[in-house]
Amino acid sequence: MKNYSIAKSRRLRSTPYTSRIEKQGVTAYTVYNHMLLPAAFGSIEESYHHLKKDVQVWDVAAERQVEISGKDSAKLVQLMTCRDLSKSKVGRCYYCPIIDDNGNLINDPVILKLAEDKWWISIADSDVIFFAKGLATGNKFDVKILEPKVDIMAIQGPKSFDLMEKVFSKTITELKFFGFNYFDYKGTKHLIARSGWSKQGGFEVYVENTASGQDLYDHLFDVGKEFNVKPGCPNLMERIESGLLSYGNDFDNNDNPFECGFEKYVNLDSDVVFLGKEKLKKS
Amino acid sequence: MKNYSIAKSRRLRSTPYTSRIEKQGVTAYTVYNHMLLPAAFGSIEESYHHLKKDVQVWDVAAERQVEISGKDSAKLVQLMTCRDLSKSKVGRCYYCPIIDDNGNLINDPVILKLAEDKWWISIADSDVIFFAKGLATGNKFDVKILEPKVDIMAIQGPKSFDLMEKVFSKTITELKFFGFNYFDYKGTKHLIARSGWSKQGGFEVYVENTASGQDLYDHLFDVGKEFNVKPGCPNLMERIESGLLSYGNDFDNNDNPFECGFEKYVNLDSDVVFLGKEKLKKS
Repeated sequence: MKNYSIAKSRRLRSTPYTSRIEKQGVTAYTVYNHMLLPAAFGSIEESYHHLKKDVQVWDVAAERQVEISGKDSAKLVQLMTCRDLSKSKVGRCYYCPIIDDNGNLINDPVILKLAEDKWWISIADSDVIFFAKGLATGNKFDVKILEPKVDIMAIQGPKSFDLMEKVFSKTITELKFFGFNYFDYKGTKHLIARSGWSKQGGFEVYVENTASGQDLYDHLFDVGKEFNVKPGCPNLMERIESGLLSYGNDFDNNDNPFECGFEKYVNLDSDVVFLGKEKLKKS
Repeated sequence: MKNYSIAKSRRLRSTPYTSRIEKQGVTAYTVYNHMLLPAAFGSIEESYHHLKKDVQVWDVAAERQVEISGKDSAKLVQLMTCRDLSKSKVGRCYYCPIIDDNGNLINDPVILKLAEDKWWISIADSDVIFFAKGLATGNKFDVKILEPKVDIMAIQGPKSFDLMEKVFSKTITELKFFGFNYFDYKGTKHLIARSGWSKQGGFEVYVENTASGQDLYDHLFDVGKEFNVKPGCPNLMERIESGLLSYGNDFDNNDNPFECGFEKYVNLDSDVVFLGKEKLKKS
């Protein structure tokens, strides 16, 4: 297959890690949430085998956040997803299909509950922020909606636990899957979740302090040599083998969650109010 | 500057013209509305000079449409834009900033009034469809919102008038700027507007019948040899020289329309109801 260049522009936003991955040999990009997402560092096969054996650091800043806070934030977040969040806990991540009033998918983010009245929706590739804004305005909800400056780096692969323990001490390995907490790096607190877009295990660092995050990025490569750390990115082969679906690739706004095998995230029997509930009952 | 490849995937949608432009020598892509938009056919300088002298055919299918129809469609469309559309006419295009309830920009589309209760919002690079869906649901508007299968090709440059006259006869040259009408091509009607993302003059064909559109694409090159027709794409040099702004490049959801020089499209003294009106009065 012939190669085509990507035409860079301000509209395809760079990340705080872009200059680093370009020095490290990134060869291809995709675009995700109007941002550059690395797609290859040379051979995808070699990267696949490395990811399954060692540890990689990924620039996944393109996984943008939609921050929803304020008095009606829980009501708005619940309105957008068919997953019952009434028993959700602060400090946990929830995989939540976002659906419209036709019961069709708009996105499949992980939602982080930061506080009873503050949420981050960590989105796949569509502008959930404008859906949230439209709903909030139409319903006259008392909420604040914005895209915070958060640039995720992921540490993925079986040796990610050793590498992260070396940097953050033993406590970080006690994080449960889809749990998150704040961890100190040289005096700066970083929100770190045990999550990531591979099935090889790992962490995602939600970097708010850019300078500290860039320093951490470099530090992971400095101290990770003994674990054979390499730069990487979500790997097409590993993703498909692991059954991780992708909005825009495997489903889109023409599909409902049942058509994507998301039954366990569709709580039609709950009392919570969400869009498309009646439509989904009939489907 | 080093070149990076674009990693193609289903999520970065191809257009009905992609296979054609790849045979014709496209060298770079950008991504726009989750779709491939050609960004170069070799030298951008040569393409710039050619665009200003002759005629080009562009694959701008990435300019997607949001179709809004139904009883409350005019109310919803007006709610989203600060431009007074109360005197708008069927058969005309309107450049309309779309703004949120903070008075900040979400997009700067051209809106086509197809009927009193049917509109196409021809969008720049953000998911206006989800903003419209959120607003419609929240306000309980009686509307239907969808992305129709419309794949625009543009014919741009000073000789576009000669080329289009050769294919569609003299009547097409009588279209006024930002007017549109339906024109016959071998028995298929195509909506054609006098518009386009250059200041060199030209037309945009809103192709709904894909097979006929592909045939028209080929035909334009067959009969356009005498006008030195070439494939092209929105040209960065020409765009900037002509003062055409670009959502995501020159402004985004952090800016209000006054900050972008859009005063003439902000009708604060009108009686129409739109989001952000009070905020903009104070800015």
